[in-house]
Amino acid sequence: MLAIPAKVAGCKELIFCTPPNPTPELLYALGLFDTDIFLVGGAQAIAAMAYGTETIPRVDKIFGPGNSYVTEAKIQVASQGVPIDMPAGPSEVLVIADEGANPAFISADVLSQAEHGEDSQIIMLTNSERILSETQDEIRRQLSSLPRKAIAEKCLANSSLILVSTLTEAIAISNSYAPEHLILAVENPDELAAEVTNAGSVFLGYLTPESVGDYSSGTNHTLPTSGFARNWSGVSTLSFLKTTTYQQLTLTGLQNLAEATITLARAEGLEAHARAVAVRLKEMGV
Amino acid sequence: MLAIPAKVAGCKELIFCTPPNPTPELLYALGLFDTDIFLVGGAQAIAAMAYGTETIPRVDKIFGPGNSYVTEAKIQVASQGVPIDMPAGPSEVLVIADEGANPAFISADVLSQAEHGEDSQIIMLTNSERILSETQDEIRRQLSSLPRKAIAEKCLANSSLILVSTLTEAIAISNSYAPEHLILAVENPDELAAEVTNAGSVFLGYLTPESVGDYSSGTNHTLPTSGFARNWSGVSTLSFLKTTTYQQLTLTGLQNLAEATITLARAEGLEAHARAVAVRLKEMGV
Repeated sequence: MLAIPAKVAGCKELIFCTPPNPTPELLYALGLFDTDIFLVGGAQAIAAMAYGTETIPRVDKIFGPGNSYVTEAKIQVASQGVPIDMPAGPSEVLVIADEGANPAFISADVLSQAEHGEDSQIIMLTNSERILSETQDEIRRQLSSLPRKAIAEKCLANSSLILVSTLTEAIAISNSYAPEHLILAVENPDELAAEVTNAGSVFLGYLTPESVGDYSSGTNHTLPTSGFARNWSGVSTLSFLKTTTYQQLTLTGLQNLAEATITLARAEGLEAHARAVAVRLKEMGV
Repeated sequence: MLAIPAKVAGCKELIFCTPPNPTPELLYALGLFDTDIFLVGGAQAIAAMAYGTETIPRVDKIFGPGNSYVTEAKIQVASQGVPIDMPAGPSEVLVIADEGANPAFISADVLSQAEHGEDSQIIMLTNSERILSETQDEIRRQLSSLPRKAIAEKCLANSSLILVSTLTEAIAISNSYAPEHLILAVENPDELAAEVTNAGSVFLGYLTPESVGDYSSGTNHTLPTSGFARNWSGVSTLSFLKTTTYQQLTLTGLQNLAEATITLARAEGLEAHARAVAVRLKEMGV
């Protein structure tokens, strides 16, 4: 729920756009915040928030997930200067599992991702042949009773379970792939976590399913996909802040900075910049 | 110099692109950092850094100022997911001056901005008729001996000196304009600064010329222009960082989050998400 970091950041005005016919659960959650809710989705919602309409106010930043039309609209308004969270694509998980991992847990995590949509992507890397083969069997077993079996099955067809030599090799592959969600189903997750350079959100150890990140662990789950964890951050309180720098010189401060400022300004041929310092020193009699 | 926040942020690889025939001063400054320097500027430099060439490596983020071709190239690569600092336009300053301000100082600051380029913009707001009229005279006087007089004169033709009723009115206009540089040439700058909502960098008091922000005060001067201080930040160490979230559950933690996670997952029809929690609880015998 992006309203929480926005409120923590001190945003005074907050609006939500969500497609018509929202679920009661969504309406209940939105009702917890003092915000306006507009029942409009798609590219038209992004345009309305970027430019303003008679009913929907123009906003300063637009965050939140959407389908490929929403993403394209966000990219277009971003090119005109409206900050967005990130160019979002289909969801992904990468699982690294060692010999001590539980195939039933890994399979449940794999299927959590698979039921999201046919274009979700799953990669599992393990250094244990036994875990690889038992996980393959267990996925098939758990899949059979899943309500969204058809979607999960199509997603699994595009996914990969890969045997690696070492966990070090696994983490190198992961860093190069830059997954949205990274599950470290290993005995010493802290050790491996220290080697992570590119990931949206990391789930440590055997008992941390990715689904708690979606619903209850408190980390934001608007995260970079499609390799963008290489150079983008997930949404956080920081996303709703901006910074302004301030400087104030005393007379001594001005004297201390005078030579550097005047020398550099003259080196660039900007005499008025130099004089802005010089005229002050002269008038102050120093 | 953007290399400093980049180094502070811990960036391991840093490259510079600058047009051919750099000044000795620039080469000296760049030589202080352990970086590769490529003598290429314009849109082609942005493309090279975004996609990589045989000689120029592909980078994760592209920051720094440039002309309108560079800006357009940055906007285009940003739409493909390369983070940039901001859509930069011509430089601006807004000066708020009270009765105690010194027309010679204000004029020097105004001319610092004016000599940047013909498309720079300057606004001065004052609640003192005397300051307004004396500043007009003083600008003309200081202009006459300026090497870049021709450029500054054209810039001044597009600039405005405005009489306001109160400093409160001045700050409201400034917040609406969202200047790149804001000079508060007033007796109690802290009081007024507390009312600033939109500005790139703020210069407090009579003795703080904008030119120290360019050269020596230590604040970064890659700042939002064209009203973008409304929703963008200047470049800082933060710009070179990204965030990754981590979570690790104990068995008790998993038990505590189980009901919320399972309830929300089932409300969204995502049974595999619920089972990823349930299967762990079952296997752990709780």
